[in-house]
Amino acid sequence: MSQNARIAHPGLRQKVMSAEAAAAFIQHGDHVGMSGFTGAGYPKVIPQALARQIERANQGGNHFRIGVWTGASTAPELDGALAKVGGIEMRLPYQSDPTCRERINAGQMDYIDIHLSHVAQFVWFGFLGKLNVAVVEVAGILEDGRLIPASSVGNNKTWLDQADKVILEVNSMQPLGLEGMHDIYYGTELPPNRKPIPMTGPGDRIGDNYLRCDPAKIVAIVETHLPDRNTTFTPPDEMSQRIAGHILEFLEHEVKKDRLPRELLPLQSGVGNIANAVLSGLNQGPFDNLTGYTEVLQDGMLEMLRSGKMRMASATALSLSPAAMEDFLANIDFYRQRIVLRPQEISNHPEIIRRLGVISMNGMIEADIYGNVNSTHLMGTRIMNGIGGSGDFARNAYLSMFMTPSTAKGGAISCIVPMASHVDHTEHDVQIIVTEQGLADLRGLAPRQRASVVIEHCAHPDFQPALRDYVARAERHALNGFAGMHTPHLLDEALSWHSRYEREGRMLPKA
Amino acid sequence: MSQNARIAHPGLRQKVMSAEAAAAFIQHGDHVGMSGFTGAGYPKVIPQALARQIERANQGGNHFRIGVWTGASTAPELDGALAKVGGIEMRLPYQSDPTCRERINAGQMDYIDIHLSHVAQFVWFGFLGKLNVAVVEVAGILEDGRLIPASSVGNNKTWLDQADKVILEVNSMQPLGLEGMHDIYYGTELPPNRKPIPMTGPGDRIGDNYLRCDPAKIVAIVETHLPDRNTTFTPPDEMSQRIAGHILEFLEHEVKKDRLPRELLPLQSGVGNIANAVLSGLNQGPFDNLTGYTEVLQDGMLEMLRSGKMRMASATALSLSPAAMEDFLANIDFYRQRIVLRPQEISNHPEIIRRLGVISMNGMIEADIYGNVNSTHLMGTRIMNGIGGSGDFARNAYLSMFMTPSTAKGGAISCIVPMASHVDHTEHDVQIIVTEQGLADLRGLAPRQRASVVIEHCAHPDFQPALRDYVARAERHALNGFAGMHTPHLLDEALSWHSRYEREGRMLPKA
Repeated sequence: MSQNARIAHPGLRQKVMSAEAAAAFIQHGDHVGMSGFTGAGYPKVIPQALARQIERANQGGNHFRIGVWTGASTAPELDGALAKVGGIEMRLPYQSDPTCRERINAGQMDYIDIHLSHVAQFVWFGFLGKLNVAVVEVAGILEDGRLIPASSVGNNKTWLDQADKVILEVNSMQPLGLEGMHDIYYGTELPPNRKPIPMTGPGDRIGDNYLRCDPAKIVAIVETHLPDRNTTFTPPDEMSQRIAGHILEFLEHEVKKDRLPRELLPLQSGVGNIANAVLSGLNQGPFDNLTGYTEVLQDGMLEMLRSGKMRMASATALSLSPAAMEDFLANIDFYRQRIVLRPQEISNHPEIIRRLGVISMNGMIEADIYGNVNSTHLMGTRIMNGIGGSGDFARNAYLSMFMTPSTAKGGAISCIVPMASHVDHTEHDVQIIVTEQGLADLRGLAPRQRASVVIEHCAHPDFQPALRDYVARAERHALNGFAGMHTPHLLDEALSWHSRYEREGRMLPKA
Repeated sequence: MSQNARIAHPGLRQKVMSAEAAAAFIQHGDHVGMSGFTGAGYPKVIPQALARQIERANQGGNHFRIGVWTGASTAPELDGALAKVGGIEMRLPYQSDPTCRERINAGQMDYIDIHLSHVAQFVWFGFLGKLNVAVVEVAGILEDGRLIPASSVGNNKTWLDQADKVILEVNSMQPLGLEGMHDIYYGTELPPNRKPIPMTGPGDRIGDNYLRCDPAKIVAIVETHLPDRNTTFTPPDEMSQRIAGHILEFLEHEVKKDRLPRELLPLQSGVGNIANAVLSGLNQGPFDNLTGYTEVLQDGMLEMLRSGKMRMASATALSLSPAAMEDFLANIDFYRQRIVLRPQEISNHPEIIRRLGVISMNGMIEADIYGNVNSTHLMGTRIMNGIGGSGDFARNAYLSMFMTPSTAKGGAISCIVPMASHVDHTEHDVQIIVTEQGLADLRGLAPRQRASVVIEHCAHPDFQPALRDYVARAERHALNGFAGMHTPHLLDEALSWHSRYEREGRMLPKA
């Protein structure tokens, strides 16, 4: 029996076993809900043990594949390990693993890309079938069986509620100082019994510090001592800094025009280097007393909390570089007063995002001249990562911004195109587009006006002539009676930039 | 001074004047917020008087154009009259007028297509500029200046709040029995001061029966006695009945599977004959004690209230045929107990739609094989009407359905296409697609699975072979390494059905 002080429930101490033994509870065909959000709080050893079992089964000629449901992206130890052995039948809702991506785009693995706020309720509603097993990393187990969540919450509440069998990884590297940082809202109901979510500020606490789970459902516990993915961010480069600069200038302008309060509104920022650079920019900027209401708390937001620029941040996961993690651990009591970690059905809830009036800033793959945004597909057919929470935020935000460098692949690709090759955010949801070239404010503009602003403010000069020419010819085509002037397009040419890239490795013909 | 009993405020009686005199308060360049939602409660004489003034100005060589903001679609007396004289510079948010549409698609008029729930708040936020004049139809004015709303609420609360000058049409044909049917919520705030909207059921009353307006802002009142548009519905044809049949069967199946309560969840239904047929079907169906939470209350829902199948309906507007209107007037006390008319920022609010778990049923122009839906653009370039509230409902609904006949223009057009020529509802927001051919339940399916279900269940047999062939070739193209297998497409061909239609008048080549 384990003497691990992190497992205080006597009955559950009896359930401690090896990862191999625990993984054996998972069967071919199971739907498995795993913890993990942006490389934080994912199970670290059971998926690998499961992958070994799958590999053995496959070698023995037995088909063994499961459905993997998570919070969002995880790490090589989970998505990577399972995808490598072909063990994932279907994956949802967001992934960023190179092997997963390769398998999905090779047609060897199904992927369902849904809004992060929809996942939990689709499971409650029974829309995705039965959840068989939950595999959840926690920081510890109290004597009464309540669970101290780890560095992400994600869909863990739902997995623990809905699964027939629960397997826990108790990771002693997850700091015990996390205890008290979480806010697990247990007030959700199914329609028609839903009530207003009683939150009016990003820092409001409306739930419990702990996750609940019927101990009788817990079939196995595995002890680990392993770090999260803790990806290092590249320091903000000139490209990111220019994007950040345009956003700062815009926010200052909005404050000046009285369209934003001086302390702005709660900030949401997508994952990645550009988002991080924007936050670094804000940390140097003129705004004080800021708040965050976001999915993932990255280095940039942590810095703002540390500097006092930001007074409170809400998220569903931490995703920190090793250096930031060191600071977080050294000052965890300070941060516990300023960070609330929530289930993702709350961090991404339309009701809350709309009420708070979030300023939403998300990366994208490409935007078209009319302001339709592609967040998920390379050249219209290859999945990159998934929509994540960008739809939850953009649709309900006070301001919805999408940002990208204006070109990719050394200038072969324009991120401003005649027609998006896949649409994740429609013209109705995209207010502001930002590249290093500039910012296009699309509020109150009709499609042809949008096209002009997007091309002139955001497109790279190398692509502006071709974009202007496309619009001019599309308008002529429409005025000649072959199409409409509301959203002029040359349908035979609209996606030709993408198909030329697939054929020739560049969007425009050689000059 | 008017002796009109409907104008009980003594000071305001002094402001009664002719439509011509009232219209003279509107200047070139003004943003004018007009009442009106789906042909109900729109001003009936001032827009026409204004159109005459615009025509005279134009003849005199003076440019005279205004921005027209409404609730949603109006009628020939408003959109038609102003569009005919070229008087509209910019129109938002939803229109269905043939002259408007023609002018927009000819590039003579700008149109901004935004979610109906966004309109009011964009004006509060200052995103659309200053609202100069409000022109609002009401049923009457109380002695203390409060206004009895007419047959639609729409954005009237916002127009009256935000405009510098207010002009009222007091229409004595609007039944006084409407008094008490409205629920005008005055609890909205700007972020960061927003509170939960205290509504948990479709019939909850959370506001006032009257609209408020500072009498000092009211510059003119015009007396009218004119009916609403009151469009006649065609009786449900076989096509609509088959679509309705598939939906009923599906709902019964969901109840059987315990994924829906026996009394279902609040119904939202788009505007038009198919929607009306679905409601007629439900009126004959096995479900009782139903509720409605919708934008527009049409004949079908009125019948359900009358029959007792539905116990309560919430909307922002009535849109009744002359026959249904007669029944409504004859039984207005009965209906007042069962209908709540709200501002459209509440009828379409994501917070409420998500909380109530609405069953959303909207028409569309086309869907593609992967479940992306086009609600607005013919052949990708010509605006039809606009997105209306379909996005507000689909994204936040418990179940989001889109329906259309499988073909249009006598079979020349397939409403199931390889790639939607415009995307208003992304794959992430579309759960169920219905045509007269059948119903595709896309929940929990990955893109290639969706394609198969959409083609086999929804496409017309005349187009199935070409769609299957497209998918097969797109998959081969992907497997040969030229594209991804997540969402296989042939980019050079994806929009060829639409461009062939523009050239040859049919989507497929002659056999």
